[in-house]
Amino acid sequence: MIQLMIDFDTIRDPAFVRTLDSAQLEELCRDIRGFLIQRISESGGHLASNLGAVELTVALHRVFDTSRDRLVFDVGHQCYTHKILTGRAAGFRGFRELGGMSGFPKPEESGHDAFVAGHASNSISAALGIARARTALGEDYDVVAVIGDGALGGGLALEGLSDAGNSGVPLIIVVNDNGMSINRAVGGFSDSLTRLRARPAYIRFKHRYRRLVRDRLPALYRFTHRVKDKVKARVMPENMFDDLGFDYIGPVEGHDIAKVEAALRWARAQGTPCIVHVITQKGRGYTPAERSPERFHGVGAFDPVSGEPDGGGGEDFSAVFGETLTALAGEDGRVTAITAAMTEGTGLLGFKDAWPAHFYDVGIAEGHAVTMAAGMASRGLIPVFAVYSTFLQRAYDMLIHDAALMGLHVVLGVDRAGIVGRDGQTHQGTFDASFLATVPGMTVYAPSSFAELRSMLRRAVLEDDGPVAVRYPRGGEGDYRADASEAACTVLRPGTDVTLVSYGIEINSALAAASILAERGVDAEVLKINRLTPLDCTAVLASVRKTGVFVAAEDVCRPGCVGERLLAAIAEAGCPIRAAKLINLGDGILANGAPEALRALTGLDGEGIAQTVCGVWEMYHGKRET
Amino acid sequence: MIQLMIDFDTIRDPAFVRTLDSAQLEELCRDIRGFLIQRISESGGHLASNLGAVELTVALHRVFDTSRDRLVFDVGHQCYTHKILTGRAAGFRGFRELGGMSGFPKPEESGHDAFVAGHASNSISAALGIARARTALGEDYDVVAVIGDGALGGGLALEGLSDAGNSGVPLIIVVNDNGMSINRAVGGFSDSLTRLRARPAYIRFKHRYRRLVRDRLPALYRFTHRVKDKVKARVMPENMFDDLGFDYIGPVEGHDIAKVEAALRWARAQGTPCIVHVITQKGRGYTPAERSPERFHGVGAFDPVSGEPDGGGGEDFSAVFGETLTALAGEDGRVTAITAAMTEGTGLLGFKDAWPAHFYDVGIAEGHAVTMAAGMASRGLIPVFAVYSTFLQRAYDMLIHDAALMGLHVVLGVDRAGIVGRDGQTHQGTFDASFLATVPGMTVYAPSSFAELRSMLRRAVLEDDGPVAVRYPRGGEGDYRADASEAACTVLRPGTDVTLVSYGIEINSALAAASILAERGVDAEVLKINRLTPLDCTAVLASVRKTGVFVAAEDVCRPGCVGERLLAAIAEAGCPIRAAKLINLGDGILANGAPEALRALTGLDGEGIAQTVCGVWEMYHGKRET
Repeated sequence: MIQLMIDFDTIRDPAFVRTLDSAQLEELCRDIRGFLIQRISESGGHLASNLGAVELTVALHRVFDTSRDRLVFDVGHQCYTHKILTGRAAGFRGFRELGGMSGFPKPEESGHDAFVAGHASNSISAALGIARARTALGEDYDVVAVIGDGALGGGLALEGLSDAGNSGVPLIIVVNDNGMSINRAVGGFSDSLTRLRARPAYIRFKHRYRRLVRDRLPALYRFTHRVKDKVKARVMPENMFDDLGFDYIGPVEGHDIAKVEAALRWARAQGTPCIVHVITQKGRGYTPAERSPERFHGVGAFDPVSGEPDGGGGEDFSAVFGETLTALAGEDGRVTAITAAMTEGTGLLGFKDAWPAHFYDVGIAEGHAVTMAAGMASRGLIPVFAVYSTFLQRAYDMLIHDAALMGLHVVLGVDRAGIVGRDGQTHQGTFDASFLATVPGMTVYAPSSFAELRSMLRRAVLEDDGPVAVRYPRGGEGDYRADASEAACTVLRPGTDVTLVSYGIEINSALAAASILAERGVDAEVLKINRLTPLDCTAVLASVRKTGVFVAAEDVCRPGCVGERLLAAIAEAGCPIRAAKLINLGDGILANGAPEALRALTGLDGEGIAQTVCGVWEMYHGKRET
Repeated sequence: MIQLMIDFDTIRDPAFVRTLDSAQLEELCRDIRGFLIQRISESGGHLASNLGAVELTVALHRVFDTSRDRLVFDVGHQCYTHKILTGRAAGFRGFRELGGMSGFPKPEESGHDAFVAGHASNSISAALGIARARTALGEDYDVVAVIGDGALGGGLALEGLSDAGNSGVPLIIVVNDNGMSINRAVGGFSDSLTRLRARPAYIRFKHRYRRLVRDRLPALYRFTHRVKDKVKARVMPENMFDDLGFDYIGPVEGHDIAKVEAALRWARAQGTPCIVHVITQKGRGYTPAERSPERFHGVGAFDPVSGEPDGGGGEDFSAVFGETLTALAGEDGRVTAITAAMTEGTGLLGFKDAWPAHFYDVGIAEGHAVTMAAGMASRGLIPVFAVYSTFLQRAYDMLIHDAALMGLHVVLGVDRAGIVGRDGQTHQGTFDASFLATVPGMTVYAPSSFAELRSMLRRAVLEDDGPVAVRYPRGGEGDYRADASEAACTVLRPGTDVTLVSYGIEINSALAAASILAERGVDAEVLKINRLTPLDCTAVLASVRKTGVFVAAEDVCRPGCVGERLLAAIAEAGCPIRAAKLINLGDGILANGAPEALRALTGLDGEGIAQTVCGVWEMYHGKRET
């Protein structure tokens, strides 16, 4: 066990960090690192980014009072030190489990958390809104956004940066530059940061050069210096940030608390929009994470000494997606893979190695990924954008306007669809079944097994036309491992009493429910929807004509879900129905927890579905008997 | 009538512009301007941006062959000269009417149109996808994007710029800088362009300075110049574009065809990602439009001599929205208006004048607008974002992640919801009823009259909590002018035979249908849904229990529409239904045309609805009689 200077469980308020001397601060940071390595090795979570932000977070708490000042984290998985210092160390037990502490900032959880975080690049806009509200209401507190170099390249952050720099509103943006987004950041705006890192050398050179000219040619120097600086300030700003209207300080060594503190105090004193550019090292202080920061970005449980993962994770849908796509690219040279900074998460590392010329990582830029894919498709490539369901929400308009209006064959690998689990409310993939259905001409497949993912992805890439999405869950298969994907909808279990419809990984719960129901004397017919959009209602109508009772179980939000669309189609077909019930996630918000626990909580496990069906069945019986 | 050098109707191919001498080119441009002023004064359309892009477009066609090279317009309302030169001058008769030519580039319309345009900022991403496809497939053609300074500030364009500059792929981006987006562009990235405009003066100064040092101090000059340029190129690029990896040329006088041509040829010769920065004047060559470019951005018919509009447009929903919001801000100082470069279009000019400190134009940045509004709402302001329905699609994720997860009171004025009309497929507001319904905790009101817009907006701003949208159509009221907004759903006409549900401006068609149906012996009960989300089904259930027949008429896409959601609720309530039919826009794609014509085409006018109801009624009778 780790030996701590302070018992972290006794921390209630971060004020104590302002009383520590430099030796104590060093000890605190060492203890925080030990604590994080120990706890995350037990629970899993984000490690490398948190190890990189320890000193930065301590410095922020020494300068700002987060009970009144507003500290807005971007993405937010680097907030663990902040959680420890604001009285939540105990939350690292049962961390990210059902009812446990969230892995992201969450205002419901603490008054020290200013804004929701999870999707990249929102912090500058949110902080600007907060700062403008403060100014408009005549209040007095500081507003600080902390954003990584990867998130800074997202369109939302750049829109925010443009407005914030121009606003003149006092606001501090800390750019936490570890030279790496979740994968290595790509693109010009990241390169700008890299160039700024070389700035101290340039500034030293510039001063030497000026001194030289000044000593040799004082009159000319005075004249040109005066004119030049004036003209230059107007037409040739020093870097992108002062070009945008910010006061800039940096780069600052991000593991030196005193230096970071000084820069933050300088920025606060300006009373303007300021950028504090801090250089940090991902995984800092833990050798395995320093060596492989990508592997220690988001981790399961691991051995804290060796850094080796506990047990084998087993094959998952992402891996099967990546392998299948790699094989398809071997069959057809037009196949092109695109990721938005999620090469590893979406299972594309193998593809990248096998087909580097057919692989594009566009950085955190989901909208651009879809529109660029549409451009590619318009000229004969077959682009496949692998993206988490929740992040695809960023590209909703691009799907409609850029892909669908021209009927372009853009393929989406929609990873982490449905209940995602421990990452919680900002990461659940509970909206895609609805919003993808509204994209004109979109085809949406929902494989329930690895075998189905393979055959559906093949069909989507090589046979279909127009926009096509294949949506699949995080993690591995359940008991269902067959491939029933030939039809748009398949009867998996014939029955006479109730029509029970489901799809994706949730089909395992539906099948389990049918077994439970059989024991209770209810004979459920289980239908698996393989293609969510467009719906083929033939099999469902035939079943409902027989049973008169319809239940759908889906791990997505209710509005626009498959069940609603099927009930509308049943009514329009004039098919009589006696009883119906939709089991789903309602508004789609779901806190952190293990997927199994969340399914049980929401009535989407076998027992929950069985209970609901029994209730509906009894209602039907009541009617039949009257 | 205008006298033209060339009969524009005889133009089949733009190749002829490459054969003209400079005098002939001048004459051609003058003729194009005359033609545009004449035609747009008759049909309405976009004028000022087209007058500004005449020489630029001619130069593009002299350098590139758009039958093989790919010319991607951004927004695209500046494409009229391109349409004339590519054989579509005749299309300016019946322009933007049903079956007539589109006001935007449309690949279906001509092989010279490379990509869909309408929503700002997509051109760079699309062009990069095209250029990468060309390179991957070993093909040989040029790819050119033309983007205005306003669209360049959008997050999608900035994401595209970042990737394109970094890509090394041959690609030309023409920045058409008229110093003005639809409203004056705001924000840092636009300011960067302004600074570049001053560049020639700076470059002249730099050259003089260098000459001076060189002549007086040659050895020092040689040394420092060599070192300095090397260091500087790495750490201090000249402007944002070369910072991002582009070769840059500009600023170029955009009304001088020879100069623009030379710059384009230079860019093509580089074989790299290039920026050609062109300065143009909006409204160029037509005094009324030069004086008031904003008024001549999008216009109805006008007198070509005076520039005065033909007839009065009458009051519209946008104006009522603006007046009401201005009054509400007088009652509550927390009310804050936000627009994304659409001050005039959303009716906010008066608000801006009355409450300048409570008004924010964030430029073309819908995502940022929502997230910034969420930040404001988190600290006690009442932000109201006025935005066109179709552009709000860009902010779908921000609505869920930044506004809804925290339940923040962000108010949306969703303008141009439903059928929009002449701007066509890229501008119809046909998805918002579905996608807004999936935003957790969202309230959506659909006023049918000015009076309802006033009362619903008041309730949304001053009484409700959480995210709230008020969606209203383009244009004015119909015959329905009452205020029935007290209830979530109102029976407007009692009846016994059929339950007919509608909302928004479409309610006028439903009421007209009920009158027609009465003549045909069918007694329809007309229900108006005032609040689309969350739905209150009480009145609908009561009506369906009486009639057994349900019809919903909506000018939105089908998946997730109100009718589908109501039919699902009816089935779950165990309410027996004999016949049902949903009348809507199916996949939501709808070409250009007058709204009345589009309603007739899609069966959403009174007669169309009456016919559908008769069909359903007969089906029901058939059933009742068996």
